[in-house]
Amino acid sequence: TFLLNSTLPPNQLIEKMPASLKRKLAKKQAKFYIIDAVDIAKDIGLGNRTNMIMQAAFFKLTGVIPEDLAIQKLYESIEHAYGRKGEKIVNMNKEAVKAGMSRFIEVAVDPAWAELTDAPDPGAEHDSPFVRDILKPMSANRGNELPVSAFVGREDGTFPSCGSRLEKRGVASFVPRWIKENCIQCNQCSFVCPHASIRPVLTEEGSETPQGFESLKAIGKELAGKNFRIQVSPYDCQGCGVCVMTCPSKEKALVMETIASQEAQAANWEFAMRQPQPTIAPTSVKNSQFRQPLLEFAGACAGCGETPYVKLISQLFGERMMIANATGCSSIWGAMVPAMPYCKNSRGQGPAWSNSLFEDAAEFGFGMMLGANEQRDQAKELAQEALAANEISGEPAAALQAWLDAGDDPAASRAAADRLLPLLERADNPLLLKLNSYRDHLVKKSFWAFGGDGWAYDIGYGGLDHVLASGEDINLLVLDTEVYSNTGGQSSKATPTAAIAKFAASGKRSKKKDLGLMARGYGYVYVAQIAMGASQAQTLRAIKEAEAYPGPSLIIAYSTCINHGLKAGMNNAQTEMKNAVDCGYWHLYRYNPLLKAEGKTPFILDSKEPDYSKFRDFIMGEVRYNALYRQNPDLAEELFAKTEQDARERLENYLRLARG
Amino acid sequence: TFLLNSTLPPNQLIEKMPASLKRKLAKKQAKFYIIDAVDIAKDIGLGNRTNMIMQAAFFKLTGVIPEDLAIQKLYESIEHAYGRKGEKIVNMNKEAVKAGMSRFIEVAVDPAWAELTDAPDPGAEHDSPFVRDILKPMSANRGNELPVSAFVGREDGTFPSCGSRLEKRGVASFVPRWIKENCIQCNQCSFVCPHASIRPVLTEEGSETPQGFESLKAIGKELAGKNFRIQVSPYDCQGCGVCVMTCPSKEKALVMETIASQEAQAANWEFAMRQPQPTIAPTSVKNSQFRQPLLEFAGACAGCGETPYVKLISQLFGERMMIANATGCSSIWGAMVPAMPYCKNSRGQGPAWSNSLFEDAAEFGFGMMLGANEQRDQAKELAQEALAANEISGEPAAALQAWLDAGDDPAASRAAADRLLPLLERADNPLLLKLNSYRDHLVKKSFWAFGGDGWAYDIGYGGLDHVLASGEDINLLVLDTEVYSNTGGQSSKATPTAAIAKFAASGKRSKKKDLGLMARGYGYVYVAQIAMGASQAQTLRAIKEAEAYPGPSLIIAYSTCINHGLKAGMNNAQTEMKNAVDCGYWHLYRYNPLLKAEGKTPFILDSKEPDYSKFRDFIMGEVRYNALYRQNPDLAEELFAKTEQDARERLENYLRLARG
Repeated sequence: TFLLNSTLPPNQLIEKMPASLKRKLAKKQAKFYIIDAVDIAKDIGLGNRTNMIMQAAFFKLTGVIPEDLAIQKLYESIEHAYGRKGEKIVNMNKEAVKAGMSRFIEVAVDPAWAELTDAPDPGAEHDSPFVRDILKPMSANRGNELPVSAFVGREDGTFPSCGSRLEKRGVASFVPRWIKENCIQCNQCSFVCPHASIRPVLTEEGSETPQGFESLKAIGKELAGKNFRIQVSPYDCQGCGVCVMTCPSKEKALVMETIASQEAQAANWEFAMRQPQPTIAPTSVKNSQFRQPLLEFAGACAGCGETPYVKLISQLFGERMMIANATGCSSIWGAMVPAMPYCKNSRGQGPAWSNSLFEDAAEFGFGMMLGANEQRDQAKELAQEALAANEISGEPAAALQAWLDAGDDPAASRAAADRLLPLLERADNPLLLKLNSYRDHLVKKSFWAFGGDGWAYDIGYGGLDHVLASGEDINLLVLDTEVYSNTGGQSSKATPTAAIAKFAASGKRSKKKDLGLMARGYGYVYVAQIAMGASQAQTLRAIKEAEAYPGPSLIIAYSTCINHGLKAGMNNAQTEMKNAVDCGYWHLYRYNPLLKAEGKTPFILDSKEPDYSKFRDFIMGEVRYNALYRQNPDLAEELFAKTEQDARERLENYLRLARG
Repeated sequence: TFLLNSTLPPNQLIEKMPASLKRKLAKKQAKFYIIDAVDIAKDIGLGNRTNMIMQAAFFKLTGVIPEDLAIQKLYESIEHAYGRKGEKIVNMNKEAVKAGMSRFIEVAVDPAWAELTDAPDPGAEHDSPFVRDILKPMSANRGNELPVSAFVGREDGTFPSCGSRLEKRGVASFVPRWIKENCIQCNQCSFVCPHASIRPVLTEEGSETPQGFESLKAIGKELAGKNFRIQVSPYDCQGCGVCVMTCPSKEKALVMETIASQEAQAANWEFAMRQPQPTIAPTSVKNSQFRQPLLEFAGACAGCGETPYVKLISQLFGERMMIANATGCSSIWGAMVPAMPYCKNSRGQGPAWSNSLFEDAAEFGFGMMLGANEQRDQAKELAQEALAANEISGEPAAALQAWLDAGDDPAASRAAADRLLPLLERADNPLLLKLNSYRDHLVKKSFWAFGGDGWAYDIGYGGLDHVLASGEDINLLVLDTEVYSNTGGQSSKATPTAAIAKFAASGKRSKKKDLGLMARGYGYVYVAQIAMGASQAQTLRAIKEAEAYPGPSLIIAYSTCINHGLKAGMNNAQTEMKNAVDCGYWHLYRYNPLLKAEGKTPFILDSKEPDYSKFRDFIMGEVRYNALYRQNPDLAEELFAKTEQDARERLENYLRLARG
């Protein structure tokens, strides 16, 4: 008995089913049923919760226990699980049981399917050996069958980047449709998209585009002569709806539609990805989005609050960055073997990424930095030697000198390297040939360590502190979900008072650690607290300042997470960040040591005076807090008051520093 | 050829030599020489530096190389090592070579010595089996000969306390003599003594005392009817002279004399130690010293800045404390196997001490605390059960109830336990018998972790931070020497800018980490910075407040160290701390979270406004800084300016907090 949940009508579904599945059904003489649980759940009012429908269908179709008993037990479990949530929820779930037991369709299995042969893999002739021999077998759950020899040449454990763009998983039931008439070309939808599956695209006015590839005249002086379009990749979208909620237009320029209705956009996406994009400086939130994300289609949860930060960083510095990633969510969605979401631009430039352990990302990144800087120093010495030897003249000598003069300025070193590299390739001077072996190190690198609060506040804190103290030019990004997200929601030192988490099942008793304030104590560490949903501009500014600061930087990024249990749903992940800042739960600031030399107060509190009357509403909008209230209202009152007091104390500390 | 360095005249020395040594000399037909290098060094002006004298004597007596060549090579090494220090130092050392080659005496070895038998070990009949079978053989360098069976019953690795008082090493050439006429009975000499070998002693007026056991009428209402005396233990004293430098009397009440002249004090010490001392509350620096140190004769360097802090803590809380010690100096001088310096009072109470690793002292102590608290909770449950069972009445029931009522108040729980314990020993009720097995846990314990800056700022910082964040009632003491002292002086994050250390051979470039400021960020951690030599009263107050605070406490104690290279000598170890605070190098403060509830500013800056004009003189008084100046004056100027600026920034942060 085979039950398939699909939003497609039966005839379309059967057409799309792969031959291997049909063959198996025919050979097993299977009973085959189809159900549209997504549609049923929406009908009943359960949103996208299809589990009760599918469970009921399972009991009905398998008959493992008598149907009456199954209904009775399911109803009992519903009362048990949802009783406290009220009669309405209980009734909706009972409705789901009934629907699951009735609203499926039996489809006849054609015996001729047993003879079907597999359709050819479209585009297989363009596959690289890695895609053909490793990625596709692993993605088809046949990784176990791979011989060791498949990995010859890959003994160092590296995996090629850009794998995720091959997956086209199509997991969303609903994806956004662009309504160009309402669009103000702000690019905020792209800024917040956790999966880089909605992007602004520029084309030359008058150039040929596919049918349906509608566009607007691009707004802005630097975009003169261009057309503008927002392009969605329906098969890469996870359907979280954050873009729709973020769209600031009076009439939304995005609306969620069924994936079936948007399939035509897949071809438009492919066309859009082939269009060369102009180089535009990321001077604003809008302009930052014309840069290619070098992290795309990461395997994070729909609505993830972490990925947009990393995607933005990849847009700004990805073509010259090295990343040490702590184990945790960001190492999972950042390295979905075999399909890597970190990718390269058309010039072959992209982040180098690696993960060592949970506890040592900062030190690991520090080592990467030392190694890369040593390579760069050796390259500089070689260049000086080559010039001193007087064997080089003309353009090669001039280009070499220009590269040395560019020093550690990122843009200048890029320009000088672009001038120098073709000359090195053609060189016959042995010193220049040797210098060519350092070609990856001619551009000033951007060094980063990424990880969650479990890494930064807890397990990796000793090393993080040591790296910050070093004074070296390295950037540490903390994706602060206030809980160990990847391992299932254990309490960390970033968890605030009153939040429920594993090891803090009746609400955490102690205050959230103020990691940023502690790092501020060094005086020579750039520190920022950001929350993209509260201020995209402050987020962009802090990240750019941190990277430019010639010393250690620490960015603490508030990241909404499924572990928070947003009552408003994860499509409000960004709005929730705004609420967190507005009510004084989270604060935005930047501490820039460079301002001291200018005689300015180095600590800038970026968030406005919060309205603490909204604090209680904010925390009650998240299950991690409101579940405590349901469990024990008296204790909740006490801990809610404490967590608000804790937040006020944090603010007092910031105000004291902002006064100078 | 045997050369012995001794301050004793030959006839006295020969009388004191053990039979085993004389036997060996006679059997080997050795040539035997005596030299008084201490006296010679003093003569020449080399203070206590006898190395060059002894080296020269070695070359002269052994003839391993021709005498002329030896002199030439020694002179060359003197020019090399001391050339930069000036002609005077060079000439003194050359003088030492000449003296070493001439000022020894040959002593005739009597062939009859070959037949000498060992004198009986005095007092051996009182030795415990541990002393007889383990401590004495190990102390005689025969530990390797011990069979495994010697350790039966000691499989858990425990060593008995109080071993150090058996050693009587007599390593000092000069020890203090008390001049009672000049004494103001302030007890500061005792407070600062690194080895607990100078103590105030109270006797009853009119009671019998040995000849020469002079005393004064004790000053102070609570000491009415007592006589007061300062007693030195000449064989336990290391001769550092810190007590003399600290004595605040106009005419010093202590003067250094040769150990030979003070030998009579050994018997007085023994008598003094047998005198029962009244219980006096440690309400002042003076009164704190009438309490028995439960750390004595620790194997630290003469003048150590660390031991006086720990000794004081042992006086205040030693009878109920548990200590987790980080590896480092404090685990070496704190556990000189086989002779332990932690000891017990006459009631058998003293600290429980253990060392796990360098990096985990805070966590290790946290575990001790959890375990001990669990035992105490079980004892409370048993007591409640016993009362509820209605099988107990009268005094046992009343004593049980009184113990429960005493709760976690240290003094009350001690009094209640004293009342209860004899009853438990005589009990026949099974619950009371079981409760008696928890007898060590009836008194509220005081939990401590000790370690140096290498532990607290660096290697153990992640765990230290985690334990502070826990909110639990545990006390962490950092003995801050600003360098990894025990391993030979490597730079730590506590090392300030400009200090020379291993891994920072040309002066550290980065600022000292402000550990206290970082811990202050929690808001619920008691934090203090102290420096005993700058204020004994503030030290005492901070330690008492930290222990009483019902949450985590962090005390950062400035500790002068031989690694600093004090030009003024280690007898000025305490004065140096005062200078550090006066010039703004170090700051005294206390952050007490309890003050918040009283509406007060919780941060109190205890040190006065410093005089930064003295800053340069202070750092130039220590080799770790002035050696940089000698190496590279320009760099030194730059780094000295930065380290002063760093110190000013620390003060600014404290002033900001003190303003509230």
